[in-house]
This record gives sequence, structure tokens and C-alpha cells, in this order.
Amino acid sequence: MSDNRSKFLGIFPSLVQELRDILVGYGMPEEAIEWYAKSLNYNTPGGKLNRGLSVVDTYALLKGYKSVDDLSVEEYKKVAILGWCVELLQAYFLVADDMMDQSITRRGQPCWYKVEEVGDIAINDSFMLEGAIYCLLKNHFRSQPYYVDLLELFHDVTFQTELGQLLDLITAPEDSVDLSKFSLKKHSFIVIFKTAYYSFYLPVALAMFAAGITDAKDLKQASDVLIPLGEYFQIQDDFLDCFGKPEDIGKIGTDIQDNKCSWVINVALQKASAEQRQVLDQNYGRKNAESEQKCRAVFDALNIEKIFHDYEEETATKLREKIANVDESRGFKAEVLTLFLNKIYHRKK
Amino acid sequence: MSDNRSKFLGIFPSLVQELRDILVGYGMPEEAIEWYAKSLNYNTPGGKLNRGLSVVDTYALLKGYKSVDDLSVEEYKKVAILGWCVELLQAYFLVADDMMDQSITRRGQPCWYKVEEVGDIAINDSFMLEGAIYCLLKNHFRSQPYYVDLLELFHDVTFQTELGQLLDLITAPEDSVDLSKFSLKKHSFIVIFKTAYYSFYLPVALAMFAAGITDAKDLKQASDVLIPLGEYFQIQDDFLDCFGKPEDIGKIGTDIQDNKCSWVINVALQKASAEQRQVLDQNYGRKNAESEQKCRAVFDALNIEKIFHDYEEETATKLREKIANVDESRGFKAEVLTLFLNKIYHRKK
Repeated sequence: MSDNRSKFLGIFPSLVQELRDILVGYGMPEEAIEWYAKSLNYNTPGGKLNRGLSVVDTYALLKGYKSVDDLSVEEYKKVAILGWCVELLQAYFLVADDMMDQSITRRGQPCWYKVEEVGDIAINDSFMLEGAIYCLLKNHFRSQPYYVDLLELFHDVTFQTELGQLLDLITAPEDSVDLSKFSLKKHSFIVIFKTAYYSFYLPVALAMFAAGITDAKDLKQASDVLIPLGEYFQIQDDFLDCFGKPEDIGKIGTDIQDNKCSWVINVALQKASAEQRQVLDQNYGRKNAESEQKCRAVFDALNIEKIFHDYEEETATKLREKIANVDESRGFKAEVLTLFLNKIYHRKK
Repeated sequence: MSDNRSKFLGIFPSLVQELRDILVGYGMPEEAIEWYAKSLNYNTPGGKLNRGLSVVDTYALLKGYKSVDDLSVEEYKKVAILGWCVELLQAYFLVADDMMDQSITRRGQPCWYKVEEVGDIAINDSFMLEGAIYCLLKNHFRSQPYYVDLLELFHDVTFQTELGQLLDLITAPEDSVDLSKFSLKKHSFIVIFKTAYYSFYLPVALAMFAAGITDAKDLKQASDVLIPLGEYFQIQDDFLDCFGKPEDIGKIGTDIQDNKCSWVINVALQKASAEQRQVLDQNYGRKNAESEQKCRAVFDALNIEKIFHDYEEETATKLREKIANVDESRGFKAEVLTLFLNKIYHRKK
């Protein structure tokens, strides 16, 4: 896996060069070209690259290759570019999210808008990270019959993610706690739109187009599993933030103090007695350890851990059934979905 | 003209409804739909609508209609949607620009990010204004042979505008004055990329596609005139900010105190003696009337007004020559370009 990662990372400098060349072609002054290259390099690699790598892995599987190394250099680059487009989309969202959340660090370095001299220019930089996607697609996929499908896929998924982000922002502002705005239904909308479409459906759909599996029925088979799978992934994330071990998840969860519209609080709100509800109203989203402990005591009394484990087993069972019923007659492969599920099921981090 | 404007404005509510319906279709909670509708209505109409209206006017001219009223209801709506897409693109830029410039008001009302409860959520709202463009194009132009051309045109022009904005932001930050960063060459790049592409070329190119005039040679004939015309327009704007009468331009110019990379300062820097340069270095971009007056004295000594008037006559002559040589054999009409030039030549506001 770390070899796959190095190989994927090895493509990125050539894409930065290509984007530089576009700016050179426009006659853009050197300092602005340097600025853009710096923003691309600072904001795009550096994460886990799961989304980008899953485009390549899924493509190899769909084409029947045993390993990513069996792809020709040209074929690898083509599909890796689609993977990098997903990472650029994520970079676009993260640069902006960090400003809206007033975050300080991201991936072990200062958030881009916190970098000396950047500041609010980061808004325009986020736009230009998105713009890079369409430059790359135009340069490499213009002659493909599915070019317009790629453009619409990116448009649709980008808009869906923005819808999820909007609902999240107006439901759970960090500075004003109002649990009556929360609900499991809204939580489901937020996580599906803000995360599942771009993190799970988009990479697989891109790999499918590149592999020539473009029937609407197959795209639907993929999304019918990947969207609930993405929701399940985010629910795990919410669960682990609250109940995971810091040594496993690599951080100390802050969702309770940050007033996050998390699965945990939404289940608690659904089950809470009037007294428990009052404790949550008075303590959730407060920036102190004592309030956090009072919320945790309610979560324990409501047995949220068991509710999660039941949810996890039930969801995994349902997804396995769906996957078992996948129609492979047009070339789509259920194994793509099984691999995603196996990576996620019972994860501790 | 004001009738044209009312008719064009009359289309917008149906587009907001259409975008609402997309969100309803996604199952989005009501409060988020209301938020989006409010952002669309607050940020999109309300300006002069010159860009949107020029799509409709250009289309009517290219199709040989005497008046916009001769278009069928259906045909009018189709081309007006393209006009509104230009206005949505502008709304996307303006919401973000106001945040980056820390502006207070826009079009006689508080900037969107200054509206109670909005704040930094305006970043995501700007993304969703851009997103609206691709939703509308998909709903109304998907079956057209030039659909992919429209998508690429919007991608290209959006990216070009962002490039211009980037160079402007790093060349002329409001809080750190360094005139050695300025040059007429950079000014030219900034105004062409930040303004001319989306304000002049984009509306005409959209009208051309809708009218079936899609030959690359014709698009080049349009851009060969409209890009220098857009540069000329912005140079006038810069000139009027400094030398226009407040009663004509409807505001008191602030470019000198705001450290703007304006045509006026760039010409002055090119012509200034060592002593004059020192005065400009010490007084440009300073937020006081005395420094402003010292800059103005240098501008007067350098006879910037005459230099502008010479530039204006020379540019208009060159553009008229280019327009006279337009090849109309494939259906493009020189009159489109003449109308633009006539609106701009010798304008006082």
C-alpha cells in the first residue's frame, strides 16, 4: 500500500508542471505562477490520499489487473490524474472549511489561510484548486466519449458536497448551541452529502468511466452501496471521536465541546428522558471538561456504545446482501464494493 | 433599455424556483433551501445587469431580430438563462472579493458576509452561486450540440478571472505599499484576466453559441476585439476613479488611498522623474487626503489626463479598424462589436 502511495505521489509534480505551463501560456507573471504552485503543493498531497488511491485501485480491479503495477505507464498516469482530481476537490473544500471553522492546523502544518502572507487570499486559492480539476480533465480527457460525463460528475458531486456543508454550517454553528436544530435525519443528510458522495461514490464512478463501465444501471449499483457505506463510515468516525482510544485514532476527540452535529449526540437526543435532555442542552458544545463529562455520563447511561455496535452489524449485513446481489453482466464487479466494506468494517481508527 | 431590464429580471424568480426544486429533490431540509434562495436573491440581481443583458441583446442581433421582443417566449428564456449564468458567475466572484477586500457595502446594501448570521458561511455560499451555473446549464442545454463548449467556456473564463484576481491580490495588497511590484504589463494582465474575459468575451461567446455561430475563427474574431475593448473599459474605469466628476461617476474615487494597481499610477510610474517617484513611493496607498493630494499633483504634472485621452482615441481607432475588417461570411456580425464600442467610447460614468 505504501508503494502504491509513492507511485501515486510520483505523478503529482508532473501535474503541477502542467498547470504551471498553462499559466506560462497565458503570460502570467512569475510570482503568481510560484504562488499557485506553492498552493497546489501545500494543499493537495500530504493527506492519506485514500480517495485518490481508490480511483487507481478500483480501476485496476475493474480491468482485471492483479496489481496496479500491471498497468502501462500511460494507463496508470491517466487514471492517477482522475485520482488527483478527487484530491484537488478535497483540497478545495478543506482550504475553505478551515477558514469557515477557523481551524489552526491541518495535516500537521498550519492551515493555508494561516500561512504568512496568505490570509484571505486563500479564498481565491481554493477557487483555483477547483479550477485545476477542469484544466486537467480538459488536457487529458477531452477526446474521450465520457468527457462530458466526467464534467457533470464533478459538477454534481461538488454541488452535493456544498449542500452538505451548508446544512452542517447552519445546523451546528460552533458558537451557538441549539440542540433542537439537530436530528438523525439531518445528520444523515449532512454526512451523505458532505462526505459520502465525494469520498466514496466519486472515486468509484471515475474509475468506472475510465474502465468503460458507464451504464447508468451500473453507476446506480455502485451508489446504492457506496452512499450508505459512506454514511456508515462517517457514523464510525463520529463514534470513534467520542468512544475511540486516543492511541488508536491518533487524536483526542473534540466533537462534544465543538457542538458537532454528530451521530452520537443525535442518537442520545432521540433516546434521552426529559432530565437527560436537560443535561445535554446545558452541557453539549461547552468548552470545558466538566460539561463534556456530564454529556458522556448521559451517553453511557443510554448505552450508545451498544447502539453503535448493533447499527454496525446491521448495516454491514445489509450491505453484504446488496453486494451479493450485484449484477456483473455488464462488467461491474461486486469485489470493488467488498473491498471498501472490508476496509471499513470494525475499524478502530 | 429599462424594459429589457424588467423583462430579464422577470426570468430570475423561475430560476430560483428551479434551483429550489433541485434541493427539494435531494431531500434537503427547508431551512437550508431558504438559505440558498436568500443568497441567490441577495447576491445575483441588484446590479446593472449589463453582462447578462448583453447576452440577450447580442443574441437578438446575431439572429437578425429588430428587438428582443421579437424572440419567442421559449427562445427568450433560453438565452436569458445564459445571461443569468454570467450574473451568477459575477455574484460568485463579488461575494468572495468583498470578503478578501473586507468591503462593507455592495450595490447599496451590506456585503453578504456582513449580513447577520452569514459571516464566513459566505465562502460556501459563493461556491453554491457558482454551482447554480452548472445546474442551470445541465437542465436547459444538455441536449444541445454545444453543451460541452458552454461548460468549457465557463471553466476557462472562471479560471482566467481567478488568475487575474490572484495577480491583483499579490501585486496590490491594501496594507503593504510597494510600487516596485507595479507595472503597466501587470496592469494589462490583471484587467484582461480579472475583467475583460468574463465581462466582455463571455457574454458574446455565449450568445454566439446559442445563435449557432460556433466556428473557432468567429470566436477569435470576437475575442480579438472584446479583450482589448475590455482592457480599454477598465482603463477608463481607473481613469474616471481618479479624474471623473463625483456627480458623473456616482461615487468618490478611492484608488489612490486604497493602493490600487490602477492604470493611472502605472502610467505615472513609467513617466515619473526620480523626485516624482519618491513622492509617489511616500504617498500612494496612504489613507489620508494630504498624501492623496501629493499624488494628484504628480499626476497633473505628468499630464495623465492628456495621456489618457490620446490612449482613448488611439484605441478606439484601432478597434474600429479591426471591426471594419470582420469577416461576416459565417454569420458573425461586426455590428455586435460596434455596439459595445459605442457604449464605452467617451463614457463619463
